[in-house]
Amino acid sequence: MKVALDAMGGDHAPQINITGAIEALRDFPKLTHLYLVGEETALQKECAAQGLDLKNPRVSIVHAAEVIGMAEPGAKSVRRKKQSSISIAMDMVKEGTADAFVSAGNTGAAVAAATIKLRCLKGIDRAGIASPLPNEHGICNILDAGANPEAKPEHLVAYAVMGTAFARHVLGVAEPRVGLMSNGEEEEKGTTFTKETFKRLKDTPGINFIGNVEGHDLFETKLDIVLCDGFVGNIVLKSVEATAKAVSKWLKTEIKETPLRMAGAVLAQGAFKALKAKSSYETYGGSPLLGVNGVVIIAHGSSTGLAVRNAIRVAVETVEHKINPRIEEAMAELPSCAPVEMVKKALHID
Amino acid sequence: MKVALDAMGGDHAPQINITGAIEALRDFPKLTHLYLVGEETALQKECAAQGLDLKNPRVSIVHAAEVIGMAEPGAKSVRRKKQSSISIAMDMVKEGTADAFVSAGNTGAAVAAATIKLRCLKGIDRAGIASPLPNEHGICNILDAGANPEAKPEHLVAYAVMGTAFARHVLGVAEPRVGLMSNGEEEEKGTTFTKETFKRLKDTPGINFIGNVEGHDLFETKLDIVLCDGFVGNIVLKSVEATAKAVSKWLKTEIKETPLRMAGAVLAQGAFKALKAKSSYETYGGSPLLGVNGVVIIAHGSSTGLAVRNAIRVAVETVEHKINPRIEEAMAELPSCAPVEMVKKALHID
Repeated sequence: MKVALDAMGGDHAPQINITGAIEALRDFPKLTHLYLVGEETALQKECAAQGLDLKNPRVSIVHAAEVIGMAEPGAKSVRRKKQSSISIAMDMVKEGTADAFVSAGNTGAAVAAATIKLRCLKGIDRAGIASPLPNEHGICNILDAGANPEAKPEHLVAYAVMGTAFARHVLGVAEPRVGLMSNGEEEEKGTTFTKETFKRLKDTPGINFIGNVEGHDLFETKLDIVLCDGFVGNIVLKSVEATAKAVSKWLKTEIKETPLRMAGAVLAQGAFKALKAKSSYETYGGSPLLGVNGVVIIAHGSSTGLAVRNAIRVAVETVEHKINPRIEEAMAELPSCAPVEMVKKALHID
Repeated sequence: MKVALDAMGGDHAPQINITGAIEALRDFPKLTHLYLVGEETALQKECAAQGLDLKNPRVSIVHAAEVIGMAEPGAKSVRRKKQSSISIAMDMVKEGTADAFVSAGNTGAAVAAATIKLRCLKGIDRAGIASPLPNEHGICNILDAGANPEAKPEHLVAYAVMGTAFARHVLGVAEPRVGLMSNGEEEEKGTTFTKETFKRLKDTPGINFIGNVEGHDLFETKLDIVLCDGFVGNIVLKSVEATAKAVSKWLKTEIKETPLRMAGAVLAQGAFKALKAKSSYETYGGSPLLGVNGVVIIAHGSSTGLAVRNAIRVAVETVEHKINPRIEEAMAELPSCAPVEMVKKALHID
């Protein structure tokens, strides 16, 4: 079980990656080797500062001379910067040197590198990011959270199959429930795109499709996968995170208004800490990029050490449960519905 | 200043509407008459129960024999139920008996009735709902929050103009800032739809377009109007509300875990109340449907009496500032860019 970590990825790299590496090596015995991929001198310095002993046989630095910045255009940077930490680490997964790749860096670049180097699984056209949100009944994954902004209905059908495999085999949910994000619960609500997707999902075998879902379902309904295109998924995910942050910030401001409120908050602080642990992305740490021929885990750009540690945990669990062959099997079992055949059917061509 | 209230609208009608009516009549002297439109016997009974004196010359019941349910299909119900409270109240605005319409009922039906009966303003193809969210610098309006799920770029340009007029003249913002909801801040981020919209917004005179915005901007950035299609807007609005509700519910659950936390929460309760007042939709109460030839205010389906009161306040303020002629003027000043002309240009036809 070998993981390649993009040690230069994230708003606070490399510091958070080394912190996360130390915690992962301590907490996950199944992790036999962790490759820290990035600028060698910078990483040696940070390891020394945080006390990560590079003589430990379970960890090593793989030098990468370039870094793809957080705001650089994804696909272009991957093609231009062959020596970037993302490119080199992805090559290690391609060649089998590593079993999984973890990055808190530029998401667009990680998705592009994965798609270019690892290619999609058999039967899959587009990869999708499954991002976890806390839900009263477990974890609800938004799929796709941003890999494929202009998705087609057939992509969402494939996401339903991939999400079901991930929730069942990695998260241990016996019968994963799949919903379609829409602007109303009734079947007739939505756009041309969601209505067409709804029809296809109803006819897709092997998934448990519960119909259209809305905002409140993300948190209150027993729901494992929420399907949407990457544009909507990215916006929903960021809006949810921003709301939780704003509520917490405004409550803090109000508490600081009087000494009495501050005293009360000190007494109740256990509740605030428990809420933070439940609702923070740090607890979940990583979002698998489903559909590529390898294990790729995307972590939040503003990841902390704890978030990186947990992204490595998701990588270990995903490698362990080998879902990619299962996704390929499930896709092969779907009734053939290739676009060419649909056009022929629509035009009455035999 | 006469307002027609859909007294049968909302999850808790007619009770909340009568409560809201009592508070509005008490608090807004500019409101010269309030028409309670709905089933006469039910309304008389509720008025008696809550002590609203129907001998008051500022209030009267207008009988409507039918009600459009919250889950009924919008446009269809309006055509079928000619005697519904929504249809009759909208007719009153059309005929000039009332200056504005307020409803916490079926949003789809209210939008359909407004579009069918009042028609769109000159230069406007599609109406849009401007829904307010609390922002650190004021109020940020999501436009469109659900009237027009499959919008075209030209609709969003018109929303930018209408939103600017509303924020300037009704909300009193001198230079309203307009953002475009996208999956990244850079100009090249987004879909074909948002990229085309971005280009047109850059060239639209009379608006202050600040570029693409994301979830965190809703709360942290000085921003008055966030443009999106009605599908995305509706999902964002519901997701934001659901997140705030989930955070508050989970915090309550954690507080109830120990007596110490509960004691702390009692001491800090002023902070919770202040946060609720700042963040609740009840405080804002109503979302104007911009673009129709009349004043129509949409209130939340789960409105309380306070929310209805505040929706009536928004109606009074919107009527007072007469923004519709200003919207028509602004639209007339836009450089002509009708679809037919664009096609001709693209095909090099003179």
